[in-house]
Amino acid sequence: MARKKTTRKKTTRKKTPARRRPPREPAADRLGALARAIADAAEKGEDPSVRIPTRALSNVDYNAGSRIIEMGDAAQTRSFFNLGQAKKFMQTALVGAGCRELLRQDKTTSIRDLFYHCKHTIEGTKENTFDEQTESDAIIEDLEVALASLREELGLFAEPKGALVGPMVIEDKGDTIDLTRMGSGGYAVPSIVEEDVIKIKSCAARFVLLIEKGAVWRRFNEDRFWDRHECLILHGGGQPPRGVRRLLWRLHHERGLPVYVLVDNDPWGYYIYSVVKQGSISLAFESQRMAVPDAKFIGMSSFDAEKYGLPSAVSILINDRDVRRAKEIRGYPWFKSRPWQREIDRMLKLGVKLELEALSAKDFSFITETYLPRKLREKDWLD
Amino acid sequence: MARKKTTRKKTTRKKTPARRRPPREPAADRLGALARAIADAAEKGEDPSVRIPTRALSNVDYNAGSRIIEMGDAAQTRSFFNLGQAKKFMQTALVGAGCRELLRQDKTTSIRDLFYHCKHTIEGTKENTFDEQTESDAIIEDLEVALASLREELGLFAEPKGALVGPMVIEDKGDTIDLTRMGSGGYAVPSIVEEDVIKIKSCAARFVLLIEKGAVWRRFNEDRFWDRHECLILHGGGQPPRGVRRLLWRLHHERGLPVYVLVDNDPWGYYIYSVVKQGSISLAFESQRMAVPDAKFIGMSSFDAEKYGLPSAVSILINDRDVRRAKEIRGYPWFKSRPWQREIDRMLKLGVKLELEALSAKDFSFITETYLPRKLREKDWLD
Repeated sequence: MARKKTTRKKTTRKKTPARRRPPREPAADRLGALARAIADAAEKGEDPSVRIPTRALSNVDYNAGSRIIEMGDAAQTRSFFNLGQAKKFMQTALVGAGCRELLRQDKTTSIRDLFYHCKHTIEGTKENTFDEQTESDAIIEDLEVALASLREELGLFAEPKGALVGPMVIEDKGDTIDLTRMGSGGYAVPSIVEEDVIKIKSCAARFVLLIEKGAVWRRFNEDRFWDRHECLILHGGGQPPRGVRRLLWRLHHERGLPVYVLVDNDPWGYYIYSVVKQGSISLAFESQRMAVPDAKFIGMSSFDAEKYGLPSAVSILINDRDVRRAKEIRGYPWFKSRPWQREIDRMLKLGVKLELEALSAKDFSFITETYLPRKLREKDWLD
Repeated sequence: MARKKTTRKKTTRKKTPARRRPPREPAADRLGALARAIADAAEKGEDPSVRIPTRALSNVDYNAGSRIIEMGDAAQTRSFFNLGQAKKFMQTALVGAGCRELLRQDKTTSIRDLFYHCKHTIEGTKENTFDEQTESDAIIEDLEVALASLREELGLFAEPKGALVGPMVIEDKGDTIDLTRMGSGGYAVPSIVEEDVIKIKSCAARFVLLIEKGAVWRRFNEDRFWDRHECLILHGGGQPPRGVRRLLWRLHHERGLPVYVLVDNDPWGYYIYSVVKQGSISLAFESQRMAVPDAKFIGMSSFDAEKYGLPSAVSILINDRDVRRAKEIRGYPWFKSRPWQREIDRMLKLGVKLELEALSAKDFSFITETYLPRKLREKDWLD
């Protein structure tokens, strides 16, 4: 693997001039402008409205140039004096006000918490502003696209999961944290990893290894793989949460670190890789801030059982759902290359899938001492 | 809250003499003895067997003296020359050998990984040693009771979840970690927290607050509740995993820290508290190593909505399942006290439940700045 120059340059605190605009400010400005426009319309006796880009499959496309899933230009107007839109307009204003309150107090909270914050019975009626959290969740996504801001910039986070260790020093809310000294548990990756929360102070890693599961990540940590191979090891507890994806994006784009993804050999593993690489269809507007088109798929491949001599007893037969899912994924534009078609066809032909833990049939540390080192040495990955 | 003397005494590394028997050794000794007994019987031409305490409701009882759920003395013999037991006997020997291998290599792994390690097709047959992980999981529980050892002492862990911060310094696998400097993510609590992995070097906390959910824990961390109230804040991402429960046990028993449990006001919240306090029925043999009978239930109580003036819109109607579950819990011997009967009856009478996030209807930091401080001041908890 080529050692990139950028990854060796250490940033010290002194070299960085004090930032004058914290990252949440642009989002706050745009939110303020949206509120101002509504108030202006109301004062002039006009119909207040907000313009919201359309979040639907019809407005999503794969950009072959940038290699990410992107939103199109379609948008719709949500106005107060439209009977079918009045409730959603009110909800949009309430969620906006809640976010404004968070920004003003310089706090962050969960989307569930915001739901409760915005929920009340409208005076003189039996009507609630919100009945279910799904309603406020949808409005949050509307606001994200309308303001071109991630929810994290508005102060909202999802349940955090995932852990990280390796040769990097970060500053998290003012605490300096050396990620080589995190013991067996690792650094719990928070949901919000924007630069005002997490600063990368120095980094001596040559690449990032994203591992699907916490249990397998633990094997890599216990065997100090990150030390022997000068890398960061990161897991997202299954489908990586937004914080993990965003941190991966920063490590790749700010530090130029190559990203390798290690998942189970099943359609779900392909899908996890696909979301890391190109973004997800349902949340396409985040792709530019989250997707890492250069991420490589390092395993497990459908060819690995044979290549590494695994006993057949550790294979699992694929079911109808796996077959359907594999065929669907085979049709994605970004899996159209010959090697990817071979990879997926092989799974369908063999009719079996494999979990990462299957490598333990050889030896508990086969995955860290033999499998992955050989993969890296032979550049045995898919793009 | 009374400040316990023991919590102020700081342990430094020098004062602790080098331990000669690492905590995993007793388990390894007992495993060795079990293997020796099998080998001896085989050499003498006798029927090899293992004696396994019965893991069933019939062999479980609530000990009103120690206030934990305990196993009885019933046991069964599993022997090799019994056609109905031969496969399970073989599986017991295989899982034992896998654990022995882990102990010998001084490694730890997941129960899924061990399943794959033990799984193979028996030579000359089409029979697998294990087909499903449920089989090896059950054998692991058998071995735990047969050896009177926790799985963690055998080197096995579950998927880790949960995080911790507060005024305590620990040593995790040789790394010294200051839990006041963990940023927004906190210290990810590993699955194995035995003393050979995690040493408590010093602790200035006056109590431990166990919070049901990660998202609410984050509010407490962001508001630095642990700093203002000199405490540890810990969450287990819902039902706390074994690592979190075991660490709580150690903090309570080794450091004398009072434990307060903060959960949603619903039957599931009561149940989480119940497991922390008395242990679970299905894994009763762990209770002595995991249960904290002195743990207090600090909220949310069915009386809190009225006491703290929450709007009715944030309540959720309980469903049939909630009612059934609440009545079941009301029947537990350890919930027979008057205050607990009132607490559960009140939920059933009001017909509503509340999530911790409902407190945000007042203000985002109402829970950390008003609700919990008042609860602690007024000693408003249940035992």
